[in-house]
Amino acid sequence: MTAPQTARRGRPGYSREQVLQIAVALFNEQGYDATSVSDLATRLGLTKSALYHHFDSKEQLLELALDSALGGLEGALDAAMEHDAVAEQLNEAIRGAVRVLTAQQPQVTLLLRLRGNSPVELAALQRRRAFDQRLSSLVRRAQHEGLLRDDIGAGTITRLIFGMINSIVEWYRADGAIDPQGLADDVLSVAIDGLRRPTAR
Amino acid sequence: MTAPQTARRGRPGYSREQVLQIAVALFNEQGYDATSVSDLATRLGLTKSALYHHFDSKEQLLELALDSALGGLEGALDAAMEHDAVAEQLNEAIRGAVRVLTAQQPQVTLLLRLRGNSPVELAALQRRRAFDQRLSSLVRRAQHEGLLRDDIGAGTITRLIFGMINSIVEWYRADGAIDPQGLADDVLSVAIDGLRRPTAR
Repeated sequence: MTAPQTARRGRPGYSREQVLQIAVALFNEQGYDATSVSDLATRLGLTKSALYHHFDSKEQLLELALDSALGGLEGALDAAMEHDAVAEQLNEAIRGAVRVLTAQQPQVTLLLRLRGNSPVELAALQRRRAFDQRLSSLVRRAQHEGLLRDDIGAGTITRLIFGMINSIVEWYRADGAIDPQGLADDVLSVAIDGLRRPTAR
Repeated sequence: MTAPQTARRGRPGYSREQVLQIAVALFNEQGYDATSVSDLATRLGLTKSALYHHFDSKEQLLELALDSALGGLEGALDAAMEHDAVAEQLNEAIRGAVRVLTAQQPQVTLLLRLRGNSPVELAALQRRRAFDQRLSSLVRRAQHEGLLRDDIGAGTITRLIFGMINSIVEWYRADGAIDPQGLADDVLSVAIDGLRRPTAR
């Protein structure tokens, strides 16, 4: 990590946070592997050496973005687990994941597209697997309590529901008409009650 | 397209189809943009010129793989639409999509990860959008017939359901324990009836 006073030496107008944001957008656009430090410097209108005043390496930018996405998801799940009832834990885990995906869409997109081609990526994938196991264990508890159907395994259910949630990063537009809170409620409702019209049941 | 007799001139042991299959696997592993013809030749143990006996360009390999994925998805939807009842059309559209995703997982993975960085990619994305519009229109008809809830817009419902379906490419293993037909039934059931335990309704 570069010290804050070093970070200030870059071209005026970019904070570290802004450089990171633009880097993540470029990684998502071109792919992380296909993006060079030169590409990023060009996008920012900085020289490579000016860019290195902000960050040590391309990998450091990736690591910070992934930590932000994973930290957000883990924090939302931690908050959900503070509820006493399993039903509330599950509802809040689903709502919380949607909130993080909409609030940190570029970072989560990067996380979901990781291929595991470097130690930083492998570490993030391992952390993501631990997160997925916590979700799966929550789904299993909800099945044991009779809240969720148990004719389908907890692993498959978790993958289908969080697959639906994760797909939001592909189409959600932060400047669009869809309210994140309303979307979180819709996702929860579709996941739990399905799409069949209630009166047709 | 190279003529069949030309394709035979490559190293014995690779058919055109096998070269394509290995190329798609490599594109998914490294990203299409980050994969060079040299990378592919190395993976195949061929010289670049031997590889060019099979295919004209990296882009041609991409185009064939995307056409295979899109053709499969469109064909499954066409078959679903031959049913008379909208309920059957919807059920078969969902089941058919799961079947194509499991049968053509590498090609569909490539399709779903496209960024639109070239004319071939943009053409495939446009064809995918047309496919998505057919699905959305089917969901809308099912809402009008009272089969599906209409408190959530057809666009959001389509994205959530096919987001769930598309996420299957991320974790399905063709050599694993999950039967594609059983998975198609599970996905349909979760989509329509949700996860709540029936007796708890």
